[in-house]
Amino acid sequence: MSQDPAGMLETFANPHPARSYLIEHHVQEFTSLCPKTGQPDYATILIRYVAAQRCVELKSLKLYLQGYRNRGIFYEDVTNVILNDLVQCLQPRWLQVQTSWSVRGGIRSVITAEHGSKPPAGPT
Amino acid sequence: MSQDPAGMLETFANPHPARSYLIEHHVQEFTSLCPKTGQPDYATILIRYVAAQRCVELKSLKLYLQGYRNRGIFYEDVTNVILNDLVQCLQPRWLQVQTSWSVRGGIRSVITAEHGSKPPAGPT
Amino acid sequence: MSQDPAGMLETFANPHPARSYLIEHHVQEFTSLCPKTGQPDYATILIRYVAAQRCVELKSLKLYLQGYRNRGIFYEDVTNVILNDLVQCLQPRWLQVQTSWSVRGGIRSVITAEHGSKPPAGPT
Amino acid sequence: MSQDPAGMLETFANPHPARSYLIEHHVQEFTSLCPKTGQPDYATILIRYVAAQRCVELKSLKLYLQGYRNRGIFYEDVTNVILNDLVQCLQPRWLQVQTSWSVRGGIRSVITAEHGSKPPAGPT
Amino acid sequence: MSQDPAGMLETFANPHPARSYLIEHHVQEFTSLCPKTGQPDYATILIRYVAAQRCVELKSLKLYLQGYRNRGIFYEDVTNVILNDLVQCLQPRWLQVQTSWSVRGGIRSVITAEHGSKPPAGPT
Amino acid sequence: MSQDPAGMLETFANPHPARSYLIEHHVQEFTSLCPKTGQPDYATILIRYVAAQRCVELKSLKLYLQGYRNRGIFYEDVTNVILNDLVQCLQPRWLQVQTSWSVRGGIRSVITAEHGSKPPAGPT
Amino acid sequence: MSQDPAGMLETFANPHPARSYLIEHHVQEFTSLCPKTGQPDYATILIRYVAAQRCVELKSLKLYLQGYRNRGIFYEDVTNVILNDLVQCLQPRWLQVQTSWSVRGGIRSVITAEHGSKPPAGPT
Amino acid sequence: MSQDPAGMLETFANPHPARSYLIEHHVQEFTSLCPKTGQPDYATILIRYVAAQRCVELKSLKLYLQGYRNRGIFYEDVTNVILNDLVQCLQPRWLQVQTSWSVRGGIRSVITAEHGSKPPAGPT
Amino acid sequence: MSQDPAGMLETFANPHPARSYLIEHHVQEFTSLCPKTGQPDYATILIRYVAAQRCVELKSLKLYLQGYRNRGIFYEDVTNVILNDLVQCLQPRWLQVQTSWSVRGGIRSVITAEHGSKPPAGPT
Amino acid sequence: MSQDPAGMLETFANPHPARSYLIEHHVQEFTSLCPKTGQPDYATILIRYVAAQRCVELKSLKLYLQGYRNRGIFYEDVTNVILNDLVQCLQPRWLQVQTSWSVRGGIRSVITAEHGSKPPAGPT
Repeated sequence: MSQDPAGMLETFANPHPARSYLIEHHVQEFTSLCPKTGQPDYATILIRYVAAQRCVELKSLKLYLQGYRNRGIFYEDVTNVILNDLVQCLQPRWLQVQTSWSVRGGIRSVITAEHGSKPPAGPT
Repeated sequence: MSQDPAGMLETFANPHPARSYLIEHHVQEFTSLCPKTGQPDYATILIRYVAAQRCVELKSLKLYLQGYRNRGIFYEDVTNVILNDLVQCLQPRWLQVQTSWSVRGGIRSVITAEHGSKPPAGPT
Repeated sequence: MSQDPAGMLETFANPHPARSYLIEHHVQEFTSLCPKTGQPDYATILIRYVAAQRCVELKSLKLYLQGYRNRGIFYEDVTNVILNDLVQCLQPRWLQVQTSWSVRGGIRSVITAEHGSKPPAGPT
Repeated sequence: MSQDPAGMLETFANPHPARSYLIEHHVQEFTSLCPKTGQPDYATILIRYVAAQRCVELKSLKLYLQGYRNRGIFYEDVTNVILNDLVQCLQPRWLQVQTSWSVRGGIRSVITAEHGSKPPAGPT
Repeated sequence: MSQDPAGMLETFANPHPARSYLIEHHVQEFTSLCPKTGQPDYATILIRYVAAQRCVELKSLKLYLQGYRNRGIFYEDVTNVILNDLVQCLQPRWLQVQTSWSVRGGIRSVITAEHGSKPPAGPT
Repeated sequence: MSQDPAGMLETFANPHPARSYLIEHHVQEFTSLCPKTGQPDYATILIRYVAAQRCVELKSLKLYLQGYRNRGIFYEDVTNVILNDLVQCLQPRWLQVQTSWSVRGGIRSVITAEHGSKPPAGPT
Repeated sequence: MSQDPAGMLETFANPHPARSYLIEHHVQEFTSLCPKTGQPDYATILIRYVAAQRCVELKSLKLYLQGYRNRGIFYEDVTNVILNDLVQCLQPRWLQVQTSWSVRGGIRSVITAEHGSKPPAGPT
Repeated sequence: MSQDPAGMLETFANPHPARSYLIEHHVQEFTSLCPKTGQPDYATILIRYVAAQRCVELKSLKLYLQGYRNRGIFYEDVTNVILNDLVQCLQPRWLQVQTSWSVRGGIRSVITAEHGSKPPAGPT
Repeated sequence: MSQDPAGMLETFANPHPARSYLIEHHVQEFTSLCPKTGQPDYATILIRYVAAQRCVELKSLKLYLQGYRNRGIFYEDVTNVILNDLVQCLQPRWLQVQTSWSVRGGIRSVITAEHGSKPPAGPT
Repeated sequence: MSQDPAGMLETFANPHPARSYLIEHHVQEFTSLCPKTGQPDYATILIRYVAAQRCVELKSLKLYLQGYRNRGIFYEDVTNVILNDLVQCLQPRWLQVQTSWSVRGGIRSVITAEHGSKPPAGPT
């Protein structure tokens, strides 16, 4: 189920839609709650995409991600939900979401999900 | 022979089974014993997989790995045994185990074993 | 629309035009303005290309990039405009522009656009 | 005004009270809200002290700090309030709190406050 | 001569004036012009102080420093002028300004000026 | 209470007893158990001392520290107990023990205890 | 000509011969002599292989490599001789030797030789 | 035009000509002059090759490169000239030259040229 | 004997002579010749001073240091000669010269000389 | 007992004997043997001194240190013997020797011995 029911994510027209080029947003501040224990989880998130007609507006992206602050959700789930929400509003050529979580029980987890096949557009 | 005879490893249903995505667990604390000398060995372990129907539950993974604390086992063997045990309970699309050992005799060893072929799902 | 109407970019004859080789310029100082807020943005820029007949002269490249100091322009746009201007004056075999922006709202963005297909010439 | 009215911070008896020794807790996960904008702030916190009769219990320290998650408070204030609350419950020989905040407007801030004079006990 | 004739720097009341504590602002984005050549200079700036009655408000500090963007001023001069302006509006117990400049002619310069004697308040 | 009742720690005669000089042993592998939960804890340990008549033999030090592998003991306690045991068998001019623990609950702890006053002998 | 005439290298049976997996030994201590000047050379050596029926025993590897301590041999030669000796005793699916030498005349050299084609088994 | 008219570069017979293996020389000290301004330029140079019948002797390589100390030559040119001279005297299976220059005008340049196609011989 | 007989070093009036403040110039490019072998030596140089009435002009400092490019001079000597020349033309309150040389025979040397006593002015 | 019976260490006249200045030699390559096991030990060595009338000649220092290559000697002993030999031939104002040894049994040791009191001459 989408975490963006209210349509917080805003987009703007890709200024160079004829070219496949790579856009990366390194989100350095993200926190949600563990659905089992209610304890806070912290992550950094890397969003990489090749736009088609729309690009995501950065301030709305920040506010959308802040919406997870007090929700309980698993690592694997939040990664795929963010991916789904961004794909729905951007309809990109390719989009990848990678979440990197702080240490829990001596284990640091990284989850990477993507939509579509990456077109040639800068480094792999 | 499996090191998980009691079935310590627990799993949960993959919340997005239709998508091939990458899950990585960087285990920063692992210790076992040298089967020859009885001296402690220390390692970090990287477990990377693309799930099919099941994901490994993190607390059970931690406890499973703690089960090696006082067992004597060689580097090459423990890497493959962990791989076998995880493959058995997860039946993943792809799974890789990499163990990196602390220096012995001026030599630092790294062992990497994998099961299946990695589907396209994030960085190689 | 080009940001180089006055033709600030100067070129010189490639001294070894028969060979495909890689030229990289890591620009460590770049600043422009946000077109929405008028606030300064800061970036580093990596320009990589395989020349055909012409190479870009470094001092003119520096002055051309200084021309953005007091202009308002979006991340995605400035990356593609620099690419277009360099392609127009160099007619290279391949050219890539990557801009890496300082943190805004906890997010660090990187935009990568390229023209042509990279011929084999040094590391990917 | 204290942020620990309910006495969340718990202590245990210093097992070696006759010796001045240094205890450091590097808190890698902390978030509060900006009292002006309501936007999240993120920090790491370094707590260093030389105990007298009591030491702070780590799980209660974690829960106490989680209590700031949804409160609006300024950098300078939260640093001193944490210092005051720890001093009140520990009555230490010396205690220092240092908060390091993530970038805002291109500026990264660090606030350091301490109580008492550090006795000789390990590195400055 | 002050660079803050219009009084851009704003202050707020120190919430804990009875305690000497250290406030550090690491400014990661600063640019001015070379008064000889008109070429841009880039610096990072570290402002450290122990407040008396007033603290500097961060947004006004950002805007004040942006005021140097198109002014020609020498390294040694700008460091002391920023110091003088901050001292004038804060009347601090101690204040230090350190500017670190990008490479020119193979030389990287760092200028450090301070006002008053640092009271004991965190690390030297 | 000493953790070295069996006298595992061995010493040898300081070959240069007339000179105050600094000996440092960086122990990169240490593990004990949490006395509350029974879960493993991991640390690195730095032992620094200025010998009088005796130096600690390295292999016996390694075996002594391995003796904590399956004991439950708190951070603050183990640091002081190791200090006490080394002081008892070495009677050094000065000795310092610093334990640095892996992350628990988002917090990384470091405990530093010492015996005597460090004579001038190399870097502080 | 082999440097292992006395057969110092010992092997043990690969415990998982049915699987292609990667074994890496990072040798951090190696020294030989320059055959021209008699001066000592220092290197680190990385040995990577995919075993067939036999694995190299680590202590014998250490002793074998110590055998070069007082022999004069060129960089290019020693790299290939170690490769040949290991291939002879292990008969591996694939084996690579990389030697990295300390600076001589402002130049740091790295030599990499391999036997066979690397099967898919962990990172390239 | 060659910079090695006097034939400073010396070679020796490849001791293992039947095997394709990788030789890398990281030159950490290189200086030449800017042909426009006469000012010194500084670079590090990476030479990588797969030998056929001959290897380059290191001392002659050092002296050959010192021959550029007081010559005026452009970045792009010197990279290709060194490549040409080495190819001429070594007749290698593959050879690559990469020059990395110190910052000029806020720009750091890297030029990479190669001869032939790299045979499989160690890391890409 | 001075290396600045022609008076290449130029100075300008200290814009804030009433304040003791620290000026640091990190020279990243320096080369001279070994007086024994004629081989090139490379160094980085750190010049730190507290000015009295005069500051050193950066372009003249660069040209002065380039004057050593083809002179034979020992590490210890060049450090003290630069110190003497700067002291003579600046008459500073305090001045320190530190030269860090590239590796020769497996040894990296650093020479540090100073004139006067450092007044309190920024970090030690 | 001295390790320099044959007087390998050579000196030259301090070119600036009137000034107390700091000379540091970072020796990156040193090896000796363990007197118990005969196994090789590896270290880096930092020699720091303030000369009186004599400085140590670098090539003789290199050869002197190579003299330990096949001798069995303990960490604590070799540090003090090198110190004694250098003090004997240099008669310095101050001299310090620090040896840093590679990992043995999971422990990395550093020994620091000095002669005299360091005069003010550059960083502590």
